[in-house]
Amino acid sequence: MLEFKTPLKDMRFLLYDVFDFPAHYKLFPSEDVVDADLIDSILEGGAEFGEKVLFPLYMSGDKDSCRLEDGHVITPKGFKEAYEEFVAGGWTTLSHNPKYGGQGLPHSLSAVFSEIMGTANWPWAMYPGLTHGAINTIEMHGEERYKELFLPPLVEGSWAGTMCLTEAHCGSDLGQLRTRAVPQEDGSYKITGSKIFISSGDHDFTDNIIHVVLARLPDAPEGTKGISLFIVPKIMVAEDGTLGERNAVEVGSLETKMGIKGSATAVVNFDDAVGYLIGPPNRGLNCMFTFINTSRVGNAIQGVASAELSYQGARKYAKERLSMRSLTGKKAPDLPADPIIVHPEVRKMLLIQRSIAEGGRAMIYQAAKIVDFMSHGETEAVRKAADKRLGLLTPILKGFLTELGVEAAGHGVQIYGGHGYIKEMGMEQVLRDVRISTIYEGTTQIQALDLLGRKIMLDRARELDAYITEIKAFCGKYGPLSVGYVGLRMKRFTKPLNSLVRQWKWTTKRLMLKASRDRNVAGSASVDYLMYSGYIVLAYAWAQIAEVALTQLEKGGDETFLKGKIQTARFYYQRMLPRAIMHHKCMTAPPESVMAIREECF
Amino acid sequence: MLEFKTPLKDMRFLLYDVFDFPAHYKLFPSEDVVDADLIDSILEGGAEFGEKVLFPLYMSGDKDSCRLEDGHVITPKGFKEAYEEFVAGGWTTLSHNPKYGGQGLPHSLSAVFSEIMGTANWPWAMYPGLTHGAINTIEMHGEERYKELFLPPLVEGSWAGTMCLTEAHCGSDLGQLRTRAVPQEDGSYKITGSKIFISSGDHDFTDNIIHVVLARLPDAPEGTKGISLFIVPKIMVAEDGTLGERNAVEVGSLETKMGIKGSATAVVNFDDAVGYLIGPPNRGLNCMFTFINTSRVGNAIQGVASAELSYQGARKYAKERLSMRSLTGKKAPDLPADPIIVHPEVRKMLLIQRSIAEGGRAMIYQAAKIVDFMSHGETEAVRKAADKRLGLLTPILKGFLTELGVEAAGHGVQIYGGHGYIKEMGMEQVLRDVRISTIYEGTTQIQALDLLGRKIMLDRARELDAYITEIKAFCGKYGPLSVGYVGLRMKRFTKPLNSLVRQWKWTTKRLMLKASRDRNVAGSASVDYLMYSGYIVLAYAWAQIAEVALTQLEKGGDETFLKGKIQTARFYYQRMLPRAIMHHKCMTAPPESVMAIREECF
Repeated sequence: MLEFKTPLKDMRFLLYDVFDFPAHYKLFPSEDVVDADLIDSILEGGAEFGEKVLFPLYMSGDKDSCRLEDGHVITPKGFKEAYEEFVAGGWTTLSHNPKYGGQGLPHSLSAVFSEIMGTANWPWAMYPGLTHGAINTIEMHGEERYKELFLPPLVEGSWAGTMCLTEAHCGSDLGQLRTRAVPQEDGSYKITGSKIFISSGDHDFTDNIIHVVLARLPDAPEGTKGISLFIVPKIMVAEDGTLGERNAVEVGSLETKMGIKGSATAVVNFDDAVGYLIGPPNRGLNCMFTFINTSRVGNAIQGVASAELSYQGARKYAKERLSMRSLTGKKAPDLPADPIIVHPEVRKMLLIQRSIAEGGRAMIYQAAKIVDFMSHGETEAVRKAADKRLGLLTPILKGFLTELGVEAAGHGVQIYGGHGYIKEMGMEQVLRDVRISTIYEGTTQIQALDLLGRKIMLDRARELDAYITEIKAFCGKYGPLSVGYVGLRMKRFTKPLNSLVRQWKWTTKRLMLKASRDRNVAGSASVDYLMYSGYIVLAYAWAQIAEVALTQLEKGGDETFLKGKIQTARFYYQRMLPRAIMHHKCMTAPPESVMAIREECF
Repeated sequence: MLEFKTPLKDMRFLLYDVFDFPAHYKLFPSEDVVDADLIDSILEGGAEFGEKVLFPLYMSGDKDSCRLEDGHVITPKGFKEAYEEFVAGGWTTLSHNPKYGGQGLPHSLSAVFSEIMGTANWPWAMYPGLTHGAINTIEMHGEERYKELFLPPLVEGSWAGTMCLTEAHCGSDLGQLRTRAVPQEDGSYKITGSKIFISSGDHDFTDNIIHVVLARLPDAPEGTKGISLFIVPKIMVAEDGTLGERNAVEVGSLETKMGIKGSATAVVNFDDAVGYLIGPPNRGLNCMFTFINTSRVGNAIQGVASAELSYQGARKYAKERLSMRSLTGKKAPDLPADPIIVHPEVRKMLLIQRSIAEGGRAMIYQAAKIVDFMSHGETEAVRKAADKRLGLLTPILKGFLTELGVEAAGHGVQIYGGHGYIKEMGMEQVLRDVRISTIYEGTTQIQALDLLGRKIMLDRARELDAYITEIKAFCGKYGPLSVGYVGLRMKRFTKPLNSLVRQWKWTTKRLMLKASRDRNVAGSASVDYLMYSGYIVLAYAWAQIAEVALTQLEKGGDETFLKGKIQTARFYYQRMLPRAIMHHKCMTAPPESVMAIREECF
């Protein structure tokens, strides 16, 4: 049976020991000093809320699902009450601007809090997640009068937000969207169109929902360069902030989905609904870019969260469930059989789950640090550099960690055997829920094109080179002459990592050269390239973890905990990292093997 | 939206051109000559039944699910009527013994028919599948009086069968089972115990259900060597075959599962139920071995069937759905965007699906031929040799093809993007349905131990060597000096295949040597070894397909069809086969990376 305890020890180890967040926060002057005490109180508050309030609703939320009654979405039993508790705890305000009622804490802290909520109950956590996205978009691009009107209740949590992007015929190709916005004399717009796959598109949590909507102005050019961004409230808001009439926004239907059933996925119809333009006309997609990078880091968390939740369920079962005897003789002679954790293949699945959950978490935390620099960096140069680095890492995090999250959840089902396939145990729900993560906010294939096409080739791999230089510097600390307890042992990681990043660099150059002659080279290499890159980034994360664990172990730290880290790192290098080689081989194969086959042959 | 057309052209290409089944059938004298006409009429009848009767119930069966009413299982709407049509068509009798009303046709034909049913509607097809298993078990081990009593109505389809093996605390560890069988004065037994995960454990298709049950005699030794096999009818059967009272067999509950919801998975309770011993006392598990090999081939079909069904749905969508423009310029300038099949990564997913569906089908057909030799081979030596070869291939087919079936269904969801996650499209159902296939009838991990431990190490790799010799002989036809249209082109396949099988041979020897000192070597290598072997066997299948396709192409055959085969083979060798290298690297890693980590570190 699924269970959930916030992995506080693992989280603290990363936050304090591996990445030293307290030192990081000293770089950002804020009203409150973000020290270990404050971090701890957020971790503990999150753990309490996640374990006691959210997790108990995880499986019931799947069973109840959302339903549509008289045009209103009813969320699963208990979801609304949990939201009220969430708002009462002040958790909605964490990282938002104090000007609009936020606590002004660094984004990274809010990401850590989101991770806890998302692990406890991803479908529930999507509601505040969407509000978060709407707030950031309005704050970044809206006129001040809109910010003053809409942001305080959104930050406070008394209203919620959505992001209404795609339409039935679009998918990721937003250039095709048709929703129209007609300017009115009072400066507002009348919005008409139908948006699909709108997460939190309607619900019973709040009095109002503020939709952020992409639409076309009457004179807009075709394609992606003719899209503008609008605020469309579900209930009209007077200038003094009081609620008025219903706006012409209706829920057309609710999708019946494979998973995340507690999260409402709606068709939202706008029929001459009143909306307000934010950002410059026709530049709506550009306005979304920065948002998209940070929001995709949020999606990447789903991979880590699902791996963690599935691992916790599987680990418990593997220690309790008795089946067969160990290949090397009875391990529990007094029991009718050994616990299945003695079997190598069960351990391998657990270790893969751990590699993904704990290593993936490290990848997220490093990216979260960069988000802090992006928004609160002292100079424009620092902020821009952070934006570039995050831009490079985002598609890797989103694409790679969600793919691995699906894999991890699959192992969780497998460890339970037949019981994993039964709803009662919850393991299959994790798999169904995480399956969306490789699709929404841009599929893995879209992430891969973003990575190789935009973030690397358009940039001529400059940012990649800088990142590789950073990793090489890390490896350089443990060169051939490195000695001592840590020095000797780290070479097991830095040696293969160093040759991998060298290969990464040269293969990228070669791909760019070939792709300049045949664009299908990039197209047919892209997902393999993304996964290849992901395995290297994860290897870097595990090397960093191993370095700290070895250092602490030498000083006599908690042996069980630290050896667990080091041995998982070893496992990752020996039994997962070979996948990088495989992707390398696939991505350097000639594109003809994919493109030569004619369409009618399918 | 999911659709299904029996891939008759692909099937005929394998049956006639690649594997020459008509020639194969000439080796088995039977009442009817099994020629191309008879094969065709079975293919066409199967296609008609699958497309018109079974497939229309596929998605509705998932929605309706099975339900329990007053202790009886009600199957989804239309399932019973489809079964009646199935029986009326005489399809239940195909490969069974004419002595009991069967048509005595080769097993391989029945496997091909099952594949069509399983592709059209796997959950439905499980009902006759279980009856098939019960018939084979009773025929192989039952006394003649039981055969005469139970087999004719089972073969005719007026009764159905089940296999009741596991119990709540057992899983695959049947040595732990507790169901008791107490001998009675009349030679029958009273069976008491609770069996779980019983597919077709109850339903409304037939007047009676014959359960094949594993139980312990009072004096039975502990563990696997104290298990016997019994027939336990749901309704008692008089000596003249008429039905009597209800036996003490009850459905305790129905499982609510991730998928295969149209298939009833029941807890079946026996409470002093009357049963009849078949096979020697305490040898029940041994009696099951032969059955298990053939039934696992049946499970392997699920991987192929799901890949085919998902591919058909994805292929259609990829040609229709418009999104983005091709990287190399507009391909459909008159449309608002290009069909997504122009995108390399969409093609890659389609080609992976095809590699699995069409190559996996070839693996199944080759195994089906061996099953024919096993049951109808002319001499004991031939039958034994076939049994050995099938024993080697079974865990590879079952473990590898079901894992790949899950992967293929996942790509089908992914190609649909957000729509793939919506129930309405059916793509996610294929994924949920196939997910059980890597679990039931022995998980992939169990298959892997069976392969490496029993089928290879216990045999000292003799059968593997013989199989490798066969593949090397195939490769040998296209050595360095081979010329001509086919000869030159085949080297692209035979050269890498030949080096892989050489590596397979030597790596196996090395693993055996190391495992003789440390059994964890085998344990921690096993799943990687299974997958590695699977990719090689699939490579062999694709090389055989390519050989025939090239030969026909040279003679001016159907270019679209044949080039499709050859290019898919190329794709497989360039973009999937590198996975074998990765598994090789993982399986030769030291077992310490898996075993050194202490249990409390998890």
